[in-house]
Amino acid sequence: MSSPGNPGGVAPPATKLVYDFAEGSREMRDLLGGKGANVAEMTRVLGAERVPAGFTITTEACVAYLRSGGEMPSGLEDEVASALARLQERAGRTLGDPVDPLLVSVRSGARESMPGMLDTVLNLGLGDQAVEGLAAATGNERFAWDSYRRFVQMFGNVCKGIPGERYETLIAGAKREAGVEDDVELSVTDLQALTGRFKSLYVRETGSEFPQDPALQLRTAIAAVFDSWRGARAVEYRRINGIPEDWGTAVNVQQMVFGNKGERSCSGVAFSRDEITGGPEPSGDFLVNAQGEDVVSGVRTPLDLSEMEALMPGAHAELLEILRTLERHYGDMQDTEFTVEEGKLFMLQTRNAKRPAQAAVRFAVDAVGEGLLERPAALATIDAGRLDALLHPTFAPDAKYEVLARGVAASPGAATGTIVFTSADAVAAHAAGRAVILVRPFTEAEDVAGFHAARGIVTSEGGKASHAALVARGMGKPCVSGARELEIDLEARTVTVGDTVLHEGDALAIDGSEGIVTTDEVPLHEAEISADLETVLEWADEVRRLRVRTNADTPADALRARQFGAEGIGLCRTEHMFMATERQPLMRALIMAEGPEDRGEALDALLPLQQGDFEGIFEAMAGLPVTVRLLDPPLHEFMPRAEDLTRELERARADGDDNAAARIEPILDRVRALSETNPMLGTRGVRLGLLHPEIYEMQARALLRAAREVTERSGVRPRLDVMIPLVAYEQELETMRRLVERVAAEEGDGAELEIGTMIELPRACFVADRIARIADFFSFGTNDLTQTALGFSRDDIEGQIVDRYIESGILDRSPFETIDKPGVGWLVRLAAWVGREAHPELELGVCGEHAGDPDSIAFFDMAGIDYVSCSPYRVPIARVAAAQSAIAATA
Amino acid sequence: MSSPGNPGGVAPPATKLVYDFAEGSREMRDLLGGKGANVAEMTRVLGAERVPAGFTITTEACVAYLRSGGEMPSGLEDEVASALARLQERAGRTLGDPVDPLLVSVRSGARESMPGMLDTVLNLGLGDQAVEGLAAATGNERFAWDSYRRFVQMFGNVCKGIPGERYETLIAGAKREAGVEDDVELSVTDLQALTGRFKSLYVRETGSEFPQDPALQLRTAIAAVFDSWRGARAVEYRRINGIPEDWGTAVNVQQMVFGNKGERSCSGVAFSRDEITGGPEPSGDFLVNAQGEDVVSGVRTPLDLSEMEALMPGAHAELLEILRTLERHYGDMQDTEFTVEEGKLFMLQTRNAKRPAQAAVRFAVDAVGEGLLERPAALATIDAGRLDALLHPTFAPDAKYEVLARGVAASPGAATGTIVFTSADAVAAHAAGRAVILVRPFTEAEDVAGFHAARGIVTSEGGKASHAALVARGMGKPCVSGARELEIDLEARTVTVGDTVLHEGDALAIDGSEGIVTTDEVPLHEAEISADLETVLEWADEVRRLRVRTNADTPADALRARQFGAEGIGLCRTEHMFMATERQPLMRALIMAEGPEDRGEALDALLPLQQGDFEGIFEAMAGLPVTVRLLDPPLHEFMPRAEDLTRELERARADGDDNAAARIEPILDRVRALSETNPMLGTRGVRLGLLHPEIYEMQARALLRAAREVTERSGVRPRLDVMIPLVAYEQELETMRRLVERVAAEEGDGAELEIGTMIELPRACFVADRIARIADFFSFGTNDLTQTALGFSRDDIEGQIVDRYIESGILDRSPFETIDKPGVGWLVRLAAWVGREAHPELELGVCGEHAGDPDSIAFFDMAGIDYVSCSPYRVPIARVAAAQSAIAATA
Repeated sequence: MSSPGNPGGVAPPATKLVYDFAEGSREMRDLLGGKGANVAEMTRVLGAERVPAGFTITTEACVAYLRSGGEMPSGLEDEVASALARLQERAGRTLGDPVDPLLVSVRSGARESMPGMLDTVLNLGLGDQAVEGLAAATGNERFAWDSYRRFVQMFGNVCKGIPGERYETLIAGAKREAGVEDDVELSVTDLQALTGRFKSLYVRETGSEFPQDPALQLRTAIAAVFDSWRGARAVEYRRINGIPEDWGTAVNVQQMVFGNKGERSCSGVAFSRDEITGGPEPSGDFLVNAQGEDVVSGVRTPLDLSEMEALMPGAHAELLEILRTLERHYGDMQDTEFTVEEGKLFMLQTRNAKRPAQAAVRFAVDAVGEGLLERPAALATIDAGRLDALLHPTFAPDAKYEVLARGVAASPGAATGTIVFTSADAVAAHAAGRAVILVRPFTEAEDVAGFHAARGIVTSEGGKASHAALVARGMGKPCVSGARELEIDLEARTVTVGDTVLHEGDALAIDGSEGIVTTDEVPLHEAEISADLETVLEWADEVRRLRVRTNADTPADALRARQFGAEGIGLCRTEHMFMATERQPLMRALIMAEGPEDRGEALDALLPLQQGDFEGIFEAMAGLPVTVRLLDPPLHEFMPRAEDLTRELERARADGDDNAAARIEPILDRVRALSETNPMLGTRGVRLGLLHPEIYEMQARALLRAAREVTERSGVRPRLDVMIPLVAYEQELETMRRLVERVAAEEGDGAELEIGTMIELPRACFVADRIARIADFFSFGTNDLTQTALGFSRDDIEGQIVDRYIESGILDRSPFETIDKPGVGWLVRLAAWVGREAHPELELGVCGEHAGDPDSIAFFDMAGIDYVSCSPYRVPIARVAAAQSAIAATA
Repeated sequence: MSSPGNPGGVAPPATKLVYDFAEGSREMRDLLGGKGANVAEMTRVLGAERVPAGFTITTEACVAYLRSGGEMPSGLEDEVASALARLQERAGRTLGDPVDPLLVSVRSGARESMPGMLDTVLNLGLGDQAVEGLAAATGNERFAWDSYRRFVQMFGNVCKGIPGERYETLIAGAKREAGVEDDVELSVTDLQALTGRFKSLYVRETGSEFPQDPALQLRTAIAAVFDSWRGARAVEYRRINGIPEDWGTAVNVQQMVFGNKGERSCSGVAFSRDEITGGPEPSGDFLVNAQGEDVVSGVRTPLDLSEMEALMPGAHAELLEILRTLERHYGDMQDTEFTVEEGKLFMLQTRNAKRPAQAAVRFAVDAVGEGLLERPAALATIDAGRLDALLHPTFAPDAKYEVLARGVAASPGAATGTIVFTSADAVAAHAAGRAVILVRPFTEAEDVAGFHAARGIVTSEGGKASHAALVARGMGKPCVSGARELEIDLEARTVTVGDTVLHEGDALAIDGSEGIVTTDEVPLHEAEISADLETVLEWADEVRRLRVRTNADTPADALRARQFGAEGIGLCRTEHMFMATERQPLMRALIMAEGPEDRGEALDALLPLQQGDFEGIFEAMAGLPVTVRLLDPPLHEFMPRAEDLTRELERARADGDDNAAARIEPILDRVRALSETNPMLGTRGVRLGLLHPEIYEMQARALLRAAREVTERSGVRPRLDVMIPLVAYEQELETMRRLVERVAAEEGDGAELEIGTMIELPRACFVADRIARIADFFSFGTNDLTQTALGFSRDDIEGQIVDRYIESGILDRSPFETIDKPGVGWLVRLAAWVGREAHPELELGVCGEHAGDPDSIAFFDMAGIDYVSCSPYRVPIARVAAAQSAIAATA
């Protein structure tokens, strides 16, 4: 058997695996992790005095360890031993020393921060002898024993997986016995007894004595940090945040300093600005006489950073100065950890602060105002992907509520209303002026009318790219998908979660930005574009090359998108216009038509309705480009389902209702004739247009009449881009181009008309030169291009397979969320290239979901695309992301 | 509006549009058409005396004419006038001359022969005056008037679309009035009267007088020939024969010679060898005192060519000599038309003879034996795509049976099976392992699945070009069409012939080579490879580079394919093994399994069955490579359909049968859960393997145990290629490779094991380098690659859209029949290239339908593919096609 690859073998990296802090810098983030690189950088910026010494084990060492199935890469132990020797020399102390021991922390540090997801061990180096040495050396016996009991606890929890509550139970017992309320009130004796109980717990759980050898402690802790990369929480976090599985984490081993040495000691976290609002005041929390994890754990309630000024004025002033220094150095808002040990301030780490969208915007504007950053650099500090949070209503910030179920944050924004279970009910309730939440196991094309009518959507199945999520995002409707705890019984019209049973008409509130469903009455907070956001968006517009359009099917969507800065409509889906309840009978009549006359009648009835739709959209866009896609979905999507009809028919027959049976039968026959095994690859798009040119002709006519009407009414001539979907052969476009041109000649000169195609099939990319010669524009339909290039049916694959692939590390993010660069990206680049070569004036757009994803936007910018078209609420995201891409390109 | 292309504009070719025969040669076939090029070549080879003079209007002129919507390209009329002047000068006569007029024929001539599909006008130049001149000049008044009435008839029919039967009615009337039986018995007066009636008919039908101006006649005839390219018959012929729409036809204008000048004149067609058997005797038909179209039309029964020796010994001997000369010159069997005018032999055209497969093989072998051709040149004369006709089973030669009905011999081969009436039933029966004959009044696109499933097809309507005939021939399935005696009642599910009433499930046997249907049990005779075919195949094997494997799922298929020369199995589809009736319950139990134990039980039961299948195949292949694809189709394919279950359930409920309902419900639930919107792009292939590794593990184990068993039993170690389907990401293959390798390690060393993947998704082609590093081989699944690259679901599109596209000229042939070079071909080349670059020893195969199509095989050969794998009956085709490709490459 030949074996050309060696995918699973232990391939020890040939490079250096351990770096002293003094050797690193922030540029080495990929290798040293964010924390390691930043601590090294801080050491350089603030001086070695301010940062406890230590070293970093590289991410490559972690990757090798994990690939080998848990074997330390060769050479690592030697390098660690040398680094430790240097650290001990500098500190003048050694690990485990019974007289004056060195203590170290062992912390994770991935390329991107994953707060709380990876493991940390503190106070490592202590043992039954060393604890006495620490007590003697510091003259603080209580401190020594408190440190030791913390270490025993943390080591058992982190390295051996002993549940934290087992320790908490023992602590609670000790406090009860001692008759005290707070940990700090436990005496030395109490702590000694508690440590003994912790060690007994360790023996019971692991079958071994608690390790006294510091080298073994260190080795075990390093392995535990490596292993925590594969922990369930970390995997989940990476899945949500799009962090690749194969990055691994670095490990930082650092001399401990102690915030728990008494009243002149403290530990805390500090932001260089207000971490919620982005305002100029530094913020943070700290605890006197405590170690860092006490601040984070929430066991004791920390004090606000401002209170430090009174308690430790010197350290506080130094800290503020350091925060300013770090912010200037990094050019970004900082999130730091510090410890004051008996009055002396140590900085343990710093990183660019994660912050909510409003804080990011405020910081960017202030930083420019203060002269800290130039506009491009300020723009670059914003996480564009989160900006839509500023535009959707949210749960009021101070609202209190109980979570009923959690699901996927599928479409941002919050909504309240009463439960309905069908699209028809949603439409009826909406017509009656009621606010409703549509609750379904999953949704389908025929539910779209219900989306329009509902305030928000909840599904128990599907993920971020399910039908419900896509449609909801497109419409800017809040949606929680895949809320699996909800048991939805459509027959009984109930939702059950544990003991709670909800019925139609019961109140529900959802937060699609957080994936939360609750039955409590939560007040909503409506969003506006703030002055700061407006400023940021103007700066973005100054630098970006990529234009931004929107996907909009209604005048309301179009207007909203224009408010958010859309420069045109890049995708108007005409089929949604036929899905409206009152139009379904016409569409069904068209599909059931026996001959040309019947069909003509149905089309004649549809034409003025379509024309009205288009007039509204043209008026809303006032001369900006409007790209209208002619009918795309297979006809059966407008019909009832065969299974439902079969059931109805059987029941009608069982009831002896011959009339009903006779009515249903021909519909079922037609639905069967239309049904396709793989409708995605079937009779849709331009194929429909070629089979039933009368439909496309009606649409073209409605468009051109609407344009003429609007020109006459408003004096502004619409710019109309007619888009033919699903073209694989240039002749398909040629035939349809002729049809549209003929209708245009017949209907007169109402619009600036361009005719182009959606590029959404691999073949179209290969023959893009031929297609380009007869197209005024291409718009890449990257959703369908992803489906065909990857062989992934979004409806079928997204929930199951894509999630499974992310869990097992095959995928980092769903290819429907961010563009698959090697496959779909390649096709886009190829088509752009050969298309432009054949037709240099060809306009290139993207109208798939990816058009609202910052990573994909950067890719499209590089590929020379002219515009992206995304849902209205993502327009500001796209403007900023496009600017960031332009800035990165010139950097 | 910008209009980058000008697809429909009249773009007159800048080049010469008319060539004298003396200017052309056979290399100019694309420009002059086959006939024009051959007549020119003949003029060179045989001398100007033997070939009536003339000129050819190019195919480019035709294309320009058709593109402009029927406008003669500028310059054409002038060039025709000059050429005509030269022709008149050479002939010493002029068109329409009242004393001694020149007559010309105006004939179509496409790049590839389309016999009878395009139009021809003879005797052009005659008019009321010229006919007198002709009579005077030839001294044969009857001949002159017969020529004139033929011209008037043909002109009206061809150029003005007046139905032929209108003329036939007038002729019949004239014969009745004259009291004669045969056309030749009509007197001059009769013919004059008849011509008058023809002209009156012309006036009635067209509203104009019959044109007397020869220039107008010529212009009209040229336009008519151009237009005939777009005629329904021609379009249909091109669709069937894969001739591109945009070739157009040339037009040949040639001086007339006359086989109807009396008893020393004749017209005929002659083949240089026997056109049925390929034997060395020239064959053909001729008619004394007749024009060429009389021979073809069948109005008079022609004489066999051998009879000419007695009647016109000189001309006969000259003809035989000329046939030998032409055959030597062209290096191929010739199909000629000739005329003897008053004893003088003229050759009107020659072309390589179309011939049935047995004649092609016989000619190739004889031509080498006679020293006429070298082996490579002889191989090149064979139409490889037709060779499978020699391999189909037939009724045993000595079988006795009673004919139930006769129909059209629509697709060769014989088959036996039981009657089914619907495509769905055929599919179900096939899945259950039963042999069936599909019996329908006629077939439609939606029946195609039934063709795949049935052994043979019978229809009561339609002929040789009916849907049934075309599809059956395409698939190599025997078919009898238009068996009108069969009264088929689809509701009652019966076939009635006289007193015999047959029901679903009754036995039937058909012989599609003879058009026979019988209810008797006729033993079938498996075809054998004749000595001549064996010879040809050996020559092919000497020169081809491309290896040929077969697609085979059973030992019987494997053995048959080896007889036909397969060098291994390139695709063994394991799912067919689960479709067998007795295994379905096990497969369903596996799918319905609640937990791992139930699943394990079902797998344990399936394993020995699979192992048995594989043992049979390994034994049949005796150490040749066997490529086994692990389970590919979505699981729901093994389950009943939701619609059927719904109907059953409703009926059970209506009947109050709670047990049945309770049994059906969970199955329906599971089927619903498994159902996918687009199963083609859903949970199948390696995705199944990753979701349910236990299934792939069972298959791998069955394979390796079978290999070990066969090694022990036969001493021959199987060569096993395990193929993982539908890989898009290299990690998918990596995971499955590990699984198979682990099983191989556990099961011991029974096989030469290679592990590779099917390349059937566009993305896989883009990342072929990454995949190649962990693959021993690639096998291109060009069926699925076509479906995804083109967005064409074969099940849904092939009947409807593809046919429509061929009709409207978007496609020349179905992309499922011959590879789509710009799209799918590009992907294959890309993947082959980058795959080989990353892994130079990578073995490359193709296992889609295209592997049996000669054009595609040539493409794969050029793309550097190592082997193609096709169905057993196409193995000889592939061997010859591969040889032809190799020969072409070195030519």
